[in-house]
Amino acid sequence: MPRHSTRDQILAAGRDLIHRNGFASSGVAEITAAAGVPKGSFYNHFESKEAFGCEALDSYWQVGSAAFAPLTGKGPARKRVRAHFTAVDALVRADNYAAGCMLGNFAIEAGPLSDALRDRAAALFENWTSALAGCLREGQADRSISAALPPETLARFLIAAWQGAVQRAKVDRSNRATAAFHATLDTILAPKS
Amino acid sequence: MPRHSTRDQILAAGRDLIHRNGFASSGVAEITAAAGVPKGSFYNHFESKEAFGCEALDSYWQVGSAAFAPLTGKGPARKRVRAHFTAVDALVRADNYAAGCMLGNFAIEAGPLSDALRDRAAALFENWTSALAGCLREGQADRSISAALPPETLARFLIAAWQGAVQRAKVDRSNRATAAFHATLDTILAPKS
Repeated sequence: MPRHSTRDQILAAGRDLIHRNGFASSGVAEITAAAGVPKGSFYNHFESKEAFGCEALDSYWQVGSAAFAPLTGKGPARKRVRAHFTAVDALVRADNYAAGCMLGNFAIEAGPLSDALRDRAAALFENWTSALAGCLREGQADRSISAALPPETLARFLIAAWQGAVQRAKVDRSNRATAAFHATLDTILAPKS
Repeated sequence: MPRHSTRDQILAAGRDLIHRNGFASSGVAEITAAAGVPKGSFYNHFESKEAFGCEALDSYWQVGSAAFAPLTGKGPARKRVRAHFTAVDALVRADNYAAGCMLGNFAIEAGPLSDALRDRAAALFENWTSALAGCLREGQADRSISAALPPETLARFLIAAWQGAVQRAKVDRSNRATAAFHATLDTILAPKS
């Protein structure tokens, strides 16, 4: 088995373990056990658990990247914003929101433990904000989206509202909070008559 | 020193430690060290770390209870909703959002580790939702608040949006996300003209 394959196994299994149980609660021994590889092999592939955490978060982001396609696609911008959040929802609702969003989890749990993890999470949030703001700007230009707020402010607000809904869904094990998000999204995006 | 005083010391110091560093990362030894009491005394006062976590969360909630007063106070409901979120903000901005909201932290981090902690967090979120929905209902009745959404849905949405803003502020160490919340709150509450 080529060397990179063991690395990929550790990355995929460790990413999913951290997503479910948290960064602090997932030790190197558990990560390698989940990957089915010897514990010692971890440090052949990753400098530290912190470095691993950064790669695991990037890998999680990569897995969900298709959900961002609507933001730069064709068609009415307001519809594309809604399609984006519908796609993001599909990524987290499979287990009834039990694991939540790994980015949101890192922001709360891993960030305070490591500046590198906090910086990585902040950078991904910033990418997300720019991508969403771009689509909101298009919608304000074509008047399908309310121009009451600057697109950057609205993007920051909507991403936070989404993350908070996933956080609540995680604790409720129900989609009530995410349903409230989707319902409210419509009224926020609609231009004032 | 009376017995309950040691208990109170452990509760206050442990609550603050868990608030800053997370539930999983705060061991009993660290909690008792922070309280300046012998490690063995912990189990004289608390059945388990899980039971301690529930009491610590309740204690955190108690400390912040004044922020809920505007919701049942006198005056225009829309102003009171804004006063509530201004007061809640004051509770978390002191350290530039580094610790965040302990309820939000528990939802993400402690909940997956313990059903008791998850249930406690869900119950506090539910209390918060009811209190905010009551004030929103008054504002819809006096037409100072938009009636585009049921008060329960709007309450659930706004609490999520607030929690997500605090989560983002925690990672950014900046108030940009909470400022976006306050700016957007005004446009959401305002009745459609």
